[in-house]
Amino acid sequence: MHAELLVASLPSVGSIPSVPFSLLPPLFFATVAATDTPLVLAGVLLSLVVIYVSSKIGGELCARLDLPSVLGELVAGVVVGVSAFDILVFPGAGEDGSGSLIMTLLKLTSTISPESVTSIFEAQSEVISVLAELGVIILLFEIGLESDLKELLRVGSQATVVAVVGVTVPFALGTIGLILLFQIPVVPAIFAGAALTATSIGITAKVLAEIQQLTSREGQIIIGAAVLDDVLGIIVLAVVASLAREGTVEIGKVIYLIVSAATFLVGAIWLGRLLIPVFETVVDGLKTRGQLLISALIFAFTLAYIANVIQLEAILGSFAAGLILAESQRRRELEEQIIPIADMFVPIFFIAVGARTDVSVLNPFVLENREGLIVASFLIVVAIFGKVVTGLTVFGQPGINRLAIGIGMIPRGEVGLVFAAVGSASGVLSKSLNAAIIAMVILTTFVAPPFLRLAFTQKPATAEGIEEGE
Amino acid sequence: MHAELLVASLPSVGSIPSVPFSLLPPLFFATVAATDTPLVLAGVLLSLVVIYVSSKIGGELCARLDLPSVLGELVAGVVVGVSAFDILVFPGAGEDGSGSLIMTLLKLTSTISPESVTSIFEAQSEVISVLAELGVIILLFEIGLESDLKELLRVGSQATVVAVVGVTVPFALGTIGLILLFQIPVVPAIFAGAALTATSIGITAKVLAEIQQLTSREGQIIIGAAVLDDVLGIIVLAVVASLAREGTVEIGKVIYLIVSAATFLVGAIWLGRLLIPVFETVVDGLKTRGQLLISALIFAFTLAYIANVIQLEAILGSFAAGLILAESQRRRELEEQIIPIADMFVPIFFIAVGARTDVSVLNPFVLENREGLIVASFLIVVAIFGKVVTGLTVFGQPGINRLAIGIGMIPRGEVGLVFAAVGSASGVLSKSLNAAIIAMVILTTFVAPPFLRLAFTQKPATAEGIEEGE
Repeated sequence: MHAELLVASLPSVGSIPSVPFSLLPPLFFATVAATDTPLVLAGVLLSLVVIYVSSKIGGELCARLDLPSVLGELVAGVVVGVSAFDILVFPGAGEDGSGSLIMTLLKLTSTISPESVTSIFEAQSEVISVLAELGVIILLFEIGLESDLKELLRVGSQATVVAVVGVTVPFALGTIGLILLFQIPVVPAIFAGAALTATSIGITAKVLAEIQQLTSREGQIIIGAAVLDDVLGIIVLAVVASLAREGTVEIGKVIYLIVSAATFLVGAIWLGRLLIPVFETVVDGLKTRGQLLISALIFAFTLAYIANVIQLEAILGSFAAGLILAESQRRRELEEQIIPIADMFVPIFFIAVGARTDVSVLNPFVLENREGLIVASFLIVVAIFGKVVTGLTVFGQPGINRLAIGIGMIPRGEVGLVFAAVGSASGVLSKSLNAAIIAMVILTTFVAPPFLRLAFTQKPATAEGIEEGE
Repeated sequence: MHAELLVASLPSVGSIPSVPFSLLPPLFFATVAATDTPLVLAGVLLSLVVIYVSSKIGGELCARLDLPSVLGELVAGVVVGVSAFDILVFPGAGEDGSGSLIMTLLKLTSTISPESVTSIFEAQSEVISVLAELGVIILLFEIGLESDLKELLRVGSQATVVAVVGVTVPFALGTIGLILLFQIPVVPAIFAGAALTATSIGITAKVLAEIQQLTSREGQIIIGAAVLDDVLGIIVLAVVASLAREGTVEIGKVIYLIVSAATFLVGAIWLGRLLIPVFETVVDGLKTRGQLLISALIFAFTLAYIANVIQLEAILGSFAAGLILAESQRRRELEEQIIPIADMFVPIFFIAVGARTDVSVLNPFVLENREGLIVASFLIVVAIFGKVVTGLTVFGQPGINRLAIGIGMIPRGEVGLVFAAVGSASGVLSKSLNAAIIAMVILTTFVAPPFLRLAFTQKPATAEGIEEGE
C-alpha cells in the first residue's frame, strides 16, 4: 500500500506504463524501494499553502473585529475542513481522500493512478497531523519559555485549587444532571461528565499571549491550572475508559499515571534547573550555526518524547523544557529564535483542530441533531458554570481578576474531542450524547477566546500599557 | 494497514486487549478512525533528537578540523544510517523497521503490537522524509534570498557555459570511456554517463554559505550553473529513462520539459518582480503575528508546488521565490526570520541524505565490490575532471577563481543517487555498475566540501575580509 513503488512500476516491470518517470522522487532514494514521496510532498506543500492562507484570512478578520486571532484560525479551519469546503480533510470514517479538494487538485495537476490516491492521501494527512502536533509542542515550549517558574510556583497552590475545582464541579454537575434530568445510564453519564473536565491549554495560552496577559498573575494561574488540568484529564480519561471497557477501574493504572506525572514534572524541573549551567556551557562551546536553537530543540523534543512514552502528553514535556530554559541567561535570544518557528508551526495546529471538527452536529434543522442539542445546551451551561466558578476559589490574591481566571479554563478544545472520540469508539456513548459532547466542545472552544479578552479589558488600562511596552 | 485503528481495536471490539487505552492519540481525532499518530509522533520526536544530536556532533567535529560543517553532517548521517549503526533507517528493499534502533527503542518504551511496527515505521519515515524535503526547499529559499538576481543575470552567460560544459564533458567522457575501456553495452554506459552530469546545488550552496562566498562572483556563477544543471539534469534523466524503458527517446517529453522549465523560471521571476509591490502592500496591511514570514512561506511553497507538479523540482520553485523576495525592501527582516527555520529544517536533509547512503559498496574487502570499485575509480576521475574543467570555460571575468568554480560543481549528492536509483530500478544497470555509480556519488559529495574551501582560501585575504565584515 504505502510502500507501493512508483519506481518499481517503471521500466522493465512496466505494469503501469502510463506513470511517467518524472513522477519519480526528485530527491532522495538510495535504494530501489521508494514511497510516493514527490506526490506526498506536493500534497503537503499544497496543504501548507491552504493552512497558511486560511489562517491569515481568519486571523486578520478576527483581529479587525477586535477578536482574538486564534478564534479566526479555528473558524478558518472549520471552513476549509470537513464541515464546509472539504479542502483539508483527514482520514476518518470512510474518508479515503476522494472528497478532499487538495487530492482533487493533485489528481488534476499530475498523473496519479487511482489506487495510489488513498495511500498518498493518508501519507500527506499523517505528515500534516504530525506537523500539527509539533505545532502544539512548539507552542507549549514557547509558552513555557515565556512563563516564570518562580511565579508559577508562587501561584501553585491557587492553580491547584482552580484545577481540582475545575475538574470536580463540571464532572459532578454534569454526571448527576444527566442521570437525574435526562435519565441517561450511569456509565455514559460519567463519560460525558469526564469530557467536561478538560481544558485546552493551547487555545487559552495562545489567547493570553495575544492579549499580553501570559505573564500577569491571572495568566500564570490559568497556565498552571491548565497544565495540572491536563494531567488530571489524562487520569480521568484512564479511569473512565477502563470503567467503560471493563466496568471496573484499574487502580494500578491510575496510581501509575499519578506517580509518573508527578515524578516527571517535578523531576524534569528539578533536574533541568540543575542542568542549566551544563546547557549553557555546551551552547557556548558550539561553533556552528544554530547552536542555541538546536540545543534547545534537542532538550524540548527529548522531554516531549519522554512525556509521550510514559503515557503523558508530549506537550507537557515541551512545556517543562520551556519552563526550565526560561531560567537560562540566553532566554531572550532563544525566545527571538523560537518566534518564527512558532509562527510557522502553530497555525497548522489550530487549522487542523478546526478542520477535524464536524460542526454539522450543531445544525438544528437536522431532526436527529435535536435531542443531542437539548442535552448539549445542558452540558454547555455546566461546562461554562463549572469553570467560571473556579475563579471564585482563588484565595489570598486580593484584587485579582477572578472572572478572567474562570473564563480562561473554559475552552475544551482538542482535549475534549479526545474524550468524545474514546467514548464513541468504546460504544458507551449514544449517537446523540456523542453529538452533544462535540457540540459542547465546539461552543466552549469558540466562545472562550472573545470572552477571555473581554474579561481582561475590565482591568485598569495601566497594567496592559506596561505589558505592551515590554 | 496504515489506517489500522488502535482505537477501534480497543474496548468493545477487544481483539487486542493488551493495548492500553493510553496509547490513544492524546490529541486530535474528532472521528473514530484515527491513525497510530501518538506513536508516530514519538518516533518522529526521537528521530529528530537523533538527527539534531548527530548533526551537531558531526558539524562541530568538522568545524574544529577546519572542514565545512555540512561534511560533518553528511558523515554523521552515514554513521547513524543504514551503513553503520542503523539508528535512523528508511523503508527500502526489505526494510520493515525491525532493524531500526529507533523502532527498537519505541518498542521498549511503549506497548506496540508487532503488526503495527511496520506501519508506524513507514509513517514516521514518511514524515522525516517530507521534513527533509522541506529542509532542502527552505535551504534553497534561503540561498535564493541571499542571492542577487541582478548579479546572477550578469553572470548568466558564464553560468550557462559552465552548466552546459559540466553536463556534456562528463557525459561524453564517461559514456565513451565505459564503452571503450570496460566493454560496457551502450545503454548502461549512457545511463552511467548521465549520472555523471548531476550537481547537488544543496551541498555546494551550503558550503558556499558557510565560507561566506555565496555572494562572491564565483559563488553566484556556481549557484547559477548549479540551478541550470538541475534543470538540465531533469531533462537528461528524462532522456535516458525513456531510452532505458523503450529503447527510444520521447522527443515530445523532452521538449515539454525544456519549455516548461524555461517558462517557469523566466515566468516566475518576471511575474514575481512585478508582484513585489503587491506582496509588500499585503504584508504591510496584515496585523497578526508572523505576517512577513507566513506571506513569504505561502509564496515559496506555492512556487515549489507548481515546480513540483509541472515535473520540475520543488527546490527550483523555492529558489525562484527566494530570488524574487530578495528584491523586496523587507529582505533583511525576512532573512533574519528564515535563519532559525533553516537551522531547524536543513540538518534533517543532510542527515537523511547521509543515512540513506549505503557506503558498504566502498568496502574493498568484499569480493563482489572490487569490479565495481575499478569502474568507480574511472567514474570518479571523470566526475572530478569533467567538472573542474568547466572553470576554464569562464570567459570575460579576469582574475576569477576558476578552480573554485570547477570544484563547486563536483558534488553529485542526492541528485546523483536519483540516477542510480532509476537505473537500478529499470534493470539497465548491472549490480557492479550500479555500485560504481553510488561510489562515485559518495566520493564526489564528500570530497567537494573540503576542496571547495581550500580553493577559496587561495584568493587574496582582503576579499574574504570584506565578505565577513558584511
